[in-house]
Amino acid sequence: MSELAAGVDLGGTKIQTVVLRGMDVVGSDRIETPQSGVDDVVAAIVTTIDGSLAQADAERGELAGVGIGSPGEIDAETGEVAESPNVPGFQKKVPLGPRVADALGTGVRVRLSNDVRVAMLGEHRRGAGRPYRDVLGVFVGTGVGGGLILDGALREGRGAAGEIGHTTVKPEGRMCSDGRRGHLEAYAGRGRMEVHARNLVEHGKDTILFDIARDRGKDRLSSGVFAKALKHGDEMAMSLVDGAVWALGIALASAQNLLDLEAIVIGGGLGDRLGRPFVDRIAEAMAPRLFVPGHAPAMLTTELGDLGGAVGAALLAAG
Amino acid sequence: MSELAAGVDLGGTKIQTVVLRGMDVVGSDRIETPQSGVDDVVAAIVTTIDGSLAQADAERGELAGVGIGSPGEIDAETGEVAESPNVPGFQKKVPLGPRVADALGTGVRVRLSNDVRVAMLGEHRRGAGRPYRDVLGVFVGTGVGGGLILDGALREGRGAAGEIGHTTVKPEGRMCSDGRRGHLEAYAGRGRMEVHARNLVEHGKDTILFDIARDRGKDRLSSGVFAKALKHGDEMAMSLVDGAVWALGIALASAQNLLDLEAIVIGGGLGDRLGRPFVDRIAEAMAPRLFVPGHAPAMLTTELGDLGGAVGAALLAAG
Repeated sequence: MSELAAGVDLGGTKIQTVVLRGMDVVGSDRIETPQSGVDDVVAAIVTTIDGSLAQADAERGELAGVGIGSPGEIDAETGEVAESPNVPGFQKKVPLGPRVADALGTGVRVRLSNDVRVAMLGEHRRGAGRPYRDVLGVFVGTGVGGGLILDGALREGRGAAGEIGHTTVKPEGRMCSDGRRGHLEAYAGRGRMEVHARNLVEHGKDTILFDIARDRGKDRLSSGVFAKALKHGDEMAMSLVDGAVWALGIALASAQNLLDLEAIVIGGGLGDRLGRPFVDRIAEAMAPRLFVPGHAPAMLTTELGDLGGAVGAALLAAG
Repeated sequence: MSELAAGVDLGGTKIQTVVLRGMDVVGSDRIETPQSGVDDVVAAIVTTIDGSLAQADAERGELAGVGIGSPGEIDAETGEVAESPNVPGFQKKVPLGPRVADALGTGVRVRLSNDVRVAMLGEHRRGAGRPYRDVLGVFVGTGVGGGLILDGALREGRGAAGEIGHTTVKPEGRMCSDGRRGHLEAYAGRGRMEVHARNLVEHGKDTILFDIARDRGKDRLSSGVFAKALKHGDEMAMSLVDGAVWALGIALASAQNLLDLEAIVIGGGLGDRLGRPFVDRIAEAMAPRLFVPGHAPAMLTTELGDLGGAVGAALLAAG
């Protein structure tokens, strides 16, 4: 019987956990991320691990390892997280790995990594990227993250590789989340698309985007809100998504010309929600910009969807 | 005593050859590339090998291997070159490796590779890139070529990796040599800078660029012509080089954000000629676009200059 490993995807709004036996998901659990500080987040992580284990008819003592994918700056050696602005309590340095290990109390090893990298690991080892040794994962969500597998291994560089979202697609273009201009993320990140939509509304443009959000009791334009507005033919939503496709076409074609990849996986909240038609449009936008048209990468949707991060974290723990 | 290897850099205007003993250049020779077809090019290559061997007090029979770096499409297995528009006779497929091996007549093995890749190999193994495992070489010449060393090995992808020159820096911008718009090469490649200069002159702008070329008996704006015009404060030359620096800043910062490299080497005809001040200006242009400013790559000039291709070809043969 293969070993059990738990994987935790710690996000600003939810904590998603799975338990893997070998390559099979045998349990999963998800709760909202407590907004009340580190102690409650640690307790919530343990709760989801216990919940996932219960589904698998297993106990804490059977876990061979626990992996956690987290936004922010990760110190893999010490298990510390810092600078994670979306998780309350994690702006300062938090020894998350040791805290979770203590709370579990079984001496199990807890490993930490960056949330985007574990999602890429999940898609590469157990998802859409399985057949390939050279794959770029592009996670189009609130921001645009990237994970790069080269020659079968996750490229870390000096710890900061993969930032495809900060590719310049239009010098002096739209403002990005990092305060610089013209990045891919400024056009394809849901967060910046929302900022741009608010600007357009202030300038008198019409859209049903904010009405849909209000009807759903949301104060943000979630991926689901965009999807619904598109379905209703909302012009602003269509134009914003056109811009995202255009920017992804430029940035991914340039990355392809440099790296000659076998495949690109498009995931993240917006990527998963808009799915195959969105990925096909990105491929079309890339095509005229490829230096060797015959070397277009396979363009893939994710297989694991929003479980990718948790599955990847469990694979990290399993080793 | 280390083995002898010959390396040949086959260009459209010149053939540069070296003989290495271990890592030392013990002989070199250079002649103009015959414009009269394949037979004469093969004979010229052999002449430069013999000339280099004579300097080294050695004979053909002592060569452990011969490497050739060539533009165009290379089949490393068969030693064939095709689609090399700048070398007369090489538009069709030419079995260059076997032809040179036959002409040498000693049964020596002849290996072929892409000219930019062997130049990168030279700078990485014996030049400025020695201390690093992750280096991008950017060869700013007639075009803009790139060679990528990741984890100490040349990245080939599926045979077409490294095309940094075809990074989009300005959508719908200046026309590139490949007929597409807004690529790095359209702003930083000497060939396209010259086309742009001619356009500006046709529109009534002043420059001494073409006067300098004429005085030198040249019909092209060589790197030396650009360097002299800059020294004289020619406004068009300064503005063209400003554009090259701007485009390099954008493309290299995006590559750095994706790959988190340790170093970038700037070479090629124009890069070598303009040297350290040019490289410093590129570093300055990159800085505000780096996602992690603390991870700026070391910015290097080449050490081997225009011998880099021949040295790299010899290392390919030896290795």
